[in-house]
Amino acid sequence: MSIQSLNQESVVQRLALTRAVMEQNGIYALLVPSADPHLSEYLPVYWQGRQWLSGFQGSVGTLIVTPTFAGLWADSRYWEQASKELADSTIELVKLQPGQPGPLEWLAEQAPAGATVSVDGAVFALASARTLEGQLNDRGAKLRTDIDVLNLVWTDRPELPNQSIYEHLPPQATVSRVDKLNLLRETLHARNADAHFIATLDDIAWLFNLRGSDVSFNPVFVSFALIESERATLFLDLNKVDVELQGRLQRDGVTLRDYAEINAALAALPVTTRLLIDPARVTCGLLSNVNSEVAFVEGLNPTTIAKSQKSLDDAFHIRQAMEQDGAALCEFFAWFEKALGHERITELTIDERLSAARARRPGFVSLSFNTIAAFNANGAMPHYHATEQEHAVIEGDGLLLIDSGGQYLGGTTDITRMIPVGTPSREQKHDCTRVLKGVIALSKAQFPKGILSPLLDSIARAPIWADNVDYGHGTGHGVGYFLNVHEGPQVIAYQAKAAPQTAMLPGMITSIEPGTYRPGRWGVRIENLVLNREAGVSEFGAFLKFETLTLCPIDTRCLEPSLLTHEELEWLDAYHAQVRDRLSPLLKGAALEWLETRTEAIS
Amino acid sequence: MSIQSLNQESVVQRLALTRAVMEQNGIYALLVPSADPHLSEYLPVYWQGRQWLSGFQGSVGTLIVTPTFAGLWADSRYWEQASKELADSTIELVKLQPGQPGPLEWLAEQAPAGATVSVDGAVFALASARTLEGQLNDRGAKLRTDIDVLNLVWTDRPELPNQSIYEHLPPQATVSRVDKLNLLRETLHARNADAHFIATLDDIAWLFNLRGSDVSFNPVFVSFALIESERATLFLDLNKVDVELQGRLQRDGVTLRDYAEINAALAALPVTTRLLIDPARVTCGLLSNVNSEVAFVEGLNPTTIAKSQKSLDDAFHIRQAMEQDGAALCEFFAWFEKALGHERITELTIDERLSAARARRPGFVSLSFNTIAAFNANGAMPHYHATEQEHAVIEGDGLLLIDSGGQYLGGTTDITRMIPVGTPSREQKHDCTRVLKGVIALSKAQFPKGILSPLLDSIARAPIWADNVDYGHGTGHGVGYFLNVHEGPQVIAYQAKAAPQTAMLPGMITSIEPGTYRPGRWGVRIENLVLNREAGVSEFGAFLKFETLTLCPIDTRCLEPSLLTHEELEWLDAYHAQVRDRLSPLLKGAALEWLETRTEAIS
Repeated sequence: MSIQSLNQESVVQRLALTRAVMEQNGIYALLVPSADPHLSEYLPVYWQGRQWLSGFQGSVGTLIVTPTFAGLWADSRYWEQASKELADSTIELVKLQPGQPGPLEWLAEQAPAGATVSVDGAVFALASARTLEGQLNDRGAKLRTDIDVLNLVWTDRPELPNQSIYEHLPPQATVSRVDKLNLLRETLHARNADAHFIATLDDIAWLFNLRGSDVSFNPVFVSFALIESERATLFLDLNKVDVELQGRLQRDGVTLRDYAEINAALAALPVTTRLLIDPARVTCGLLSNVNSEVAFVEGLNPTTIAKSQKSLDDAFHIRQAMEQDGAALCEFFAWFEKALGHERITELTIDERLSAARARRPGFVSLSFNTIAAFNANGAMPHYHATEQEHAVIEGDGLLLIDSGGQYLGGTTDITRMIPVGTPSREQKHDCTRVLKGVIALSKAQFPKGILSPLLDSIARAPIWADNVDYGHGTGHGVGYFLNVHEGPQVIAYQAKAAPQTAMLPGMITSIEPGTYRPGRWGVRIENLVLNREAGVSEFGAFLKFETLTLCPIDTRCLEPSLLTHEELEWLDAYHAQVRDRLSPLLKGAALEWLETRTEAIS
Repeated sequence: MSIQSLNQESVVQRLALTRAVMEQNGIYALLVPSADPHLSEYLPVYWQGRQWLSGFQGSVGTLIVTPTFAGLWADSRYWEQASKELADSTIELVKLQPGQPGPLEWLAEQAPAGATVSVDGAVFALASARTLEGQLNDRGAKLRTDIDVLNLVWTDRPELPNQSIYEHLPPQATVSRVDKLNLLRETLHARNADAHFIATLDDIAWLFNLRGSDVSFNPVFVSFALIESERATLFLDLNKVDVELQGRLQRDGVTLRDYAEINAALAALPVTTRLLIDPARVTCGLLSNVNSEVAFVEGLNPTTIAKSQKSLDDAFHIRQAMEQDGAALCEFFAWFEKALGHERITELTIDERLSAARARRPGFVSLSFNTIAAFNANGAMPHYHATEQEHAVIEGDGLLLIDSGGQYLGGTTDITRMIPVGTPSREQKHDCTRVLKGVIALSKAQFPKGILSPLLDSIARAPIWADNVDYGHGTGHGVGYFLNVHEGPQVIAYQAKAAPQTAMLPGMITSIEPGTYRPGRWGVRIENLVLNREAGVSEFGAFLKFETLTLCPIDTRCLEPSLLTHEELEWLDAYHAQVRDRLSPLLKGAALEWLETRTEAIS
């Protein structure tokens, strides 16, 4: 995924070139976010300009360059990596922390009156541009978004990705693209809009029942979509779509145009258009093409809510995918337990073996993210990934954390389990047990339909907070349907803003993954995916509950059962009984034996 | 508290007069909120213009009058009362509900282009005025805040209150006004402000260690305060302050001026002033006096945060007040249990007897709100108050809900208990038990210092939601120190916005009061006050826990113990043991016997 690493000398040279271009253009500060025109989480290398210019290879970080300063803002999961990669680069690591100014606040506070701040509008969200522009104007400074400084110095910029696009077909695709487009047009009509511009790749893939491989792990393809009353246009590299698929799309009322034509298409919108856009999901650069008389109707992309609500038909396929995924994990764990102590196993071996087990399962397409196999101290880094250069050998005593997932035609999986190696310590078991209490508390919860999801977080954390323990990441992220493994709008995190669009609705899939991280020692995380199910309507309104989708034993050898309440033990035993019942038919031999042992009741 | 009731004929006449004045002044719509220049929760009758004009006597509601429409927006607790009081008034009851437009949204949606909307700026928060003005301007309409239409038609308007002002003295006043003023000036300096205007009565009473009786239940007095580097000025009716107190205030550097002089004082602020104001806590009318060159520094009143954080010395006095309050309740309950079935007891008798028991306690000043004694169906109305005309006799079977509290020199109390009458039904016991589970879950919670308080609500609600039950009010409100019984900034309510100022800090006092309301049948609420205490600092940060302050048995005859977990039974028994230990020394005879019986362990 990342562009090739480079020596610090080249970073220093690139910064010098960049500053020269800035000076020529009267630019005081250059902002380089980790972003693309689709505001994606994972970026094709073509848009990894921040990596190229700074040398910092982490996937999230923001660079600011002024004549006398260069700073890279990164959150805590990247501090160790960034401080290594930025050493001698002349770029300062600025630690992104709650209560400290982020890069945009820093600019808003530091830009001198009269200064020009520049960011490539093509990769900068309209909502961010509005906020930053307002703040800069208050200081007498200004924002310029019409120049891509980086492009002027990045002469060996990589190509755009060109992977083939394919269809997500029935039975797993449970609603046709024609029906989805019709529903979307009804929503546009209800919102008094007659056109809709979509830049986000997951929304587009879902709407058109198409998938691609332009980005690792997320089965999406680089494109834009423009939905009007009479036509739906997809802007993409036409070479990615074979003739047969082109024909089928055409028959479904979908016009294909070249990716680069989006600017012209937006410019050609009639001035009477009422264009629905999500200011947080489109860039100011793209919208600058639109005639200023066109009226914007602003709100969440309707597809974002629609795709988050999986249907009963979707759920049927997802349960099957979860069974296949659980079976693959059982096969892997059966091998691991037998091999441990007899052959050399590293974090990399685990990734290989587990990926191979998944790949044997019907419906498997790819991993849904980079496997995290992290032994002891490595587990304390929530986004750790072992490399050829740096990885641990699994030996001695401790805890192994494995966070992994797959893309199946019938769903996306994401699971974290703790595995004992040798004899875990008393404190390690306490950490695992406390985290499990959090998983159980939230998994059992019922709640009013429509509650804002960040408000549910304290249910998972209460048993963990009880021991003065907390964790810095969210408890739960939304998950797509054979789509992105991080896919909102819901989010169970007290750190997140409880915005109206985070409301819990039936059919949403969310992770429940509390953790405990002890830097330099070990990390614990246990993660299941859950589905929002109707829990009935009473005189007090409609309620939802969670169906736990993920099927894989939670290793009780990492637990201290005396710390679990009667109700928690009951939940664990019932979960294991269900895991055994549903996975047994898919397994045999050592894997089946392993499943039976690891799902034995403990109360 | 409420002005005298009136027949609908006079409401119709008043509306006609009002519309005539509106027409003369070119006003399309008149907005009449329930508000005063201090944006208080409870209003002196002088500012009960909305009641006078509409005939609706409820304490919260907003009236809008246009040439062809008059509507009164009220929330669910007032719907029954409002529909009675508005009958034949030609005023439409508009039910305030989540997702439906409130009165300001209605105006923003309905005002025609060119129309003038008028509201008395003297009683309209600056923040609200900004929002409404922006929305109206977007529609080509405008907002006018410089005319008090009501005052032109309300010829027999009552007088301003004129109750004496007295000092809150040591030992209960634990910090002198001189020290509080010095601390406030340090905060102003840190915020780069050199003056601060305060309109909110609880902030003023706290800052100057003064109390009054201008408003029922809240021991505050009508006034404004202007704090500058060299002086602090209180604007009030000088007749309320005796000569001796005037002298002491003067010696402490406090200048007294007449209430009406605030406008001139604000107008006289030098143009170089940097004035700290809270836009949600000052009215646009008052601030319209300030020279437009004066710079506003905007933020929460520093006193709001300062007074919410009770000191260890305050906590000492609060615990004593809680003991006295608990003892009064025991005396009342001992009488009640003996008298029930032998003498006629109504909801009014309960109020009288309970108030008398409190009044006998040292340090008692007044009730902290109107006692709610509500039997069976009346309990289903969260803000029910029995009157001479309408009240229930306590007889037969069911549940009695008593929500009451007192103002003591050393603290403010607020407690709700459920009392069985005859034999409560199985369903009633289940409701009480489930509500108690919510109380226990939150009372036991630990949480990170600084967490936004609305995020804690789901801990209390999870055991209630588990049975598809919910309640419409918040779980917890902040409580003052011999001050307002509703006093933020913290609020434990998932309905509330999780704003930064709701952060939980040491020393805050909050209620925990989940409930269940079955209209026409019964209502359940159990309420304790809790104090934020430090729970230690770990590698994961600083944590807080609650100390339960309220001391009074929770009647176990209303409970179904088999529905409580082992841990919940332990909490209840430990709570009762503490109640017994701390209240016994204050009681004798029947009250002591009652305490001992009602605090027996049940597990």
